[in-house]
Amino acid sequence: MTSTPSDVSDWWMTEIIDMAPGQIRLRGHPIEELIGNVSFPQMIWLMTRGDLPTPEQAKLLECALVAAVDHGPQAPSIAAARMAVTCGLGLNGAMASAVNMLDDVHGGAGEQAVELFGWIDTAVQQGLHVEDAAAQMIDRWQTERTTFVPGYGHRFHKPEDPRAPRLLNLVDDAAREGIVSGRFARIGTAILQILNSRKGKPIPMNIDGATAVVYAELGFAGQLARGLFCLSRSVGVIAHAWEQMNQGGRNKGPTPPAYRWTYTGPNPIEDKS
Amino acid sequence: MTSTPSDVSDWWMTEIIDMAPGQIRLRGHPIEELIGNVSFPQMIWLMTRGDLPTPEQAKLLECALVAAVDHGPQAPSIAAARMAVTCGLGLNGAMASAVNMLDDVHGGAGEQAVELFGWIDTAVQQGLHVEDAAAQMIDRWQTERTTFVPGYGHRFHKPEDPRAPRLLNLVDDAAREGIVSGRFARIGTAILQILNSRKGKPIPMNIDGATAVVYAELGFAGQLARGLFCLSRSVGVIAHAWEQMNQGGRNKGPTPPAYRWTYTGPNPIEDKS
Amino acid sequence: MTSTPSDVSDWWMTEIIDMAPGQIRLRGHPIEELIGNVSFPQMIWLMTRGDLPTPEQAKLLECALVAAVDHGPQAPSIAAARMAVTCGLGLNGAMASAVNMLDDVHGGAGEQAVELFGWIDTAVQQGLHVEDAAAQMIDRWQTERTTFVPGYGHRFHKPEDPRAPRLLNLVDDAAREGIVSGRFARIGTAILQILNSRKGKPIPMNIDGATAVVYAELGFAGQLARGLFCLSRSVGVIAHAWEQMNQGGRNKGPTPPAYRWTYTGPNPIEDKS
Amino acid sequence: MTSTPSDVSDWWMTEIIDMAPGQIRLRGHPIEELIGNVSFPQMIWLMTRGDLPTPEQAKLLECALVAAVDHGPQAPSIAAARMAVTCGLGLNGAMASAVNMLDDVHGGAGEQAVELFGWIDTAVQQGLHVEDAAAQMIDRWQTERTTFVPGYGHRFHKPEDPRAPRLLNLVDDAAREGIVSGRFARIGTAILQILNSRKGKPIPMNIDGATAVVYAELGFAGQLARGLFCLSRSVGVIAHAWEQMNQGGRNKGPTPPAYRWTYTGPNPIEDKS
Repeated sequence: MTSTPSDVSDWWMTEIIDMAPGQIRLRGHPIEELIGNVSFPQMIWLMTRGDLPTPEQAKLLECALVAAVDHGPQAPSIAAARMAVTCGLGLNGAMASAVNMLDDVHGGAGEQAVELFGWIDTAVQQGLHVEDAAAQMIDRWQTERTTFVPGYGHRFHKPEDPRAPRLLNLVDDAAREGIVSGRFARIGTAILQILNSRKGKPIPMNIDGATAVVYAELGFAGQLARGLFCLSRSVGVIAHAWEQMNQGGRNKGPTPPAYRWTYTGPNPIEDKS
Repeated sequence: MTSTPSDVSDWWMTEIIDMAPGQIRLRGHPIEELIGNVSFPQMIWLMTRGDLPTPEQAKLLECALVAAVDHGPQAPSIAAARMAVTCGLGLNGAMASAVNMLDDVHGGAGEQAVELFGWIDTAVQQGLHVEDAAAQMIDRWQTERTTFVPGYGHRFHKPEDPRAPRLLNLVDDAAREGIVSGRFARIGTAILQILNSRKGKPIPMNIDGATAVVYAELGFAGQLARGLFCLSRSVGVIAHAWEQMNQGGRNKGPTPPAYRWTYTGPNPIEDKS
Repeated sequence: MTSTPSDVSDWWMTEIIDMAPGQIRLRGHPIEELIGNVSFPQMIWLMTRGDLPTPEQAKLLECALVAAVDHGPQAPSIAAARMAVTCGLGLNGAMASAVNMLDDVHGGAGEQAVELFGWIDTAVQQGLHVEDAAAQMIDRWQTERTTFVPGYGHRFHKPEDPRAPRLLNLVDDAAREGIVSGRFARIGTAILQILNSRKGKPIPMNIDGATAVVYAELGFAGQLARGLFCLSRSVGVIAHAWEQMNQGGRNKGPTPPAYRWTYTGPNPIEDKS
Repeated sequence: MTSTPSDVSDWWMTEIIDMAPGQIRLRGHPIEELIGNVSFPQMIWLMTRGDLPTPEQAKLLECALVAAVDHGPQAPSIAAARMAVTCGLGLNGAMASAVNMLDDVHGGAGEQAVELFGWIDTAVQQGLHVEDAAAQMIDRWQTERTTFVPGYGHRFHKPEDPRAPRLLNLVDDAAREGIVSGRFARIGTAILQILNSRKGKPIPMNIDGATAVVYAELGFAGQLARGLFCLSRSVGVIAHAWEQMNQGGRNKGPTPPAYRWTYTGPNPIEDKS
């Protein structure tokens, strides 16, 4: 949008939004036609991908967004949000502090799972059985990337993360209704079976794996899986930051003050009474 | 949730989430019963307020969330998100950089508008006419806080921000159906008329004012108005950051490099050829 | 700096830096003349204030910068930095997460103390004795702002914060040598005596108060006191984040996982075995 | 530091800081003995590495810290800091917003350069001539990582970045005095000559390359090179954010508002008058 087409305007170029005084169009749709007529998940899809999803597609996306909102104050992001408000930050600052931490180790797991699923899907389309493709690509992942298979395993939810079977069931339903193909659910399940068999014990599919199935079924790129996870988890972040605001406190540390920390360096203070 | 009730567990106390291996409850609801059964806006309400809204209430909340997703790359937050990905950040880092900027001057306007509306509402409940209450409280706001009346005026959208009348219409519809009282829509409109009359020209109600009407009608606290705005605008942030990732670029600055900046200090470089 | 003077270049106007290909001047000084010839504290002063301090002034600034680098992992900012690297962030992200938290409640105390000292200084210059001015302005602060007198009191360091007397001694030395006036040290001490007398027990001057004395003596604005504190504390942030990187860990939470948190909401999970 | 040694205290374990009421020791040194006796660069070294450097080592570190403080408002980090304060953030929030952006593409270049220098150093110690080692490792870097050789090339400073020769001269001086070995300066110069020869035109060593030489000579790990760069650039960030605060402005965008952006998507608004 520009009154003076120029190299300055061209420095900021976008297909997302056009404006004129009194007018806003998002992906070509006048904003006043979107408000009240599309759901928030439809809007998320429209903004990130350019086209409007069907209500059924948006419904499945919504399930993933609902599933990942919170995992409690033991999560570093939630703890950071709660500490942040006791340092004087508003909800925007608390949210920024928390979302920043949803990096490769956590927020990135969904992104990586979509990528791994994609490798397997390509191999299946080239003729491999899904079990063979999954086994080969798990090996490749562990060789080229890391021993952590993204989307599987949980230090707390054993033997099962309650969100995963529920989401997989909903994907199966959607596949039966022709809304999605269901092939990423098969891939996700194939990985699960291989990991269970290799480990000799049940390894849960976690929230990153289960939502990655949904995002891959719906055609989202891996990086967007991370973005959508951040959006979903922000709901929990806001809820916890707001609860902490109401609880009060100043400069809240990670543990009760009496415990402090353990010093292991040189020349310790002997008498700490 | 704790296996060992103790002062350590009590340091992190919450009414939001309970967990056990294989079980997650949010506000008392098993997560697997929420997934697929509540909408994302219902989940946002449940997490921040503790109870589940009716579908109609959630629908009105959804309208506000849809309305505020983006205002283009001239907004500092969107520009920051786009620059951030060219510096190497993922979508989580881009989102953090952007949301952090939704502070008092921008993100805070919705919060302040809810507060101002609350002052007026209290005065009305004490017997004043809404026009008189609005006039008095605008004066009080400008005396005690700042001359900027939060939620009104726009440097670009004149004479009207297209999102405001649409949202007000939807609030009117909801009031007719008994979903909300409609008294904050009357307050918001009363302020608009007073400002128009005082300025002698149309002053638009902006997105912060219009969403504040919705949030106040639905009973959200002012700080949550800021949080919900951050959540909504994050959608645009993710869309723009993702678009920039696909456009590429490294260390993108604010203007085309040839323009640089204007130096006004001592001992300038004479020959810049 | 601009090859094409224009409204675009003027949008970004600064007295700080001028550049041409192969040339950089900071506050008018060629960068190559600064490197190796000015100390880092002198550079900090030059950049934030525009002129070069004497070595003696820079030395006193350096004392404040050295004093505030760390307060251990119980501080929310340090805890956040350490958690951040276990989520996958680099040192830039850890530093951002931590510094963001140095907001009004903590990072703002130094800023507020400089402001309070300024009120008292103005009253003294208008003829009041420093004790009377301090008493009046403490009352004014507690009436207009908050009961917390910024820069005093510590939940851990009682009866004395070891950094405060050391810094005050160095300010006294500098006052004797004519480097500073010493009047903010007198103001800081007057507040301390009044608080001790009002509380009936020793209230320590804390790091924010002691560094605020230094910054006020050197003529720094209050907001810069916050900025300088952030710069100083960043040293501890980097050290702790780097130590945590070497310790390893993934998604480090605030307390050992076995403790979890205490759930106080509706419908708790009964059997958590 | 703990009154109650326990698994809770052990969750936060550090060699950096020990405390008791009225006592703080950093790396074993009482804080009151450090204040006034060590320089800020010595403190930075002590905190990040555990031992106190000689004054000469600290002096060379200081040169790198002084060199990198600013590169003007065309840098995305500086622009972000200036925009941030117009959104309502304090200097801590501005600094967080800016430092977060010093990620792999920019802040990471110094870290990567230290790593590349280390590869070459290892090859030299295994018997290769420095020119041959540099040529081989440049090839390896471009094969395994990216075509960008970290620390070289500049889109603006051509043919030379004024900071690099100055820093290299200071490293040469330090090598002559036996403070450092000088072998990373030789490595850095060898890379420069190879790149110049391959490109057939002068490629400047940039600030990331030149400071990486200093950091490598002083034995800093690559990740710390990024951290130290963030610390140094924070000085410019604070100076620019503070200048912007004094200039004023609300919600400052990247370009003058009249230019806006170029919309390239579907269904553009035809009449934007």
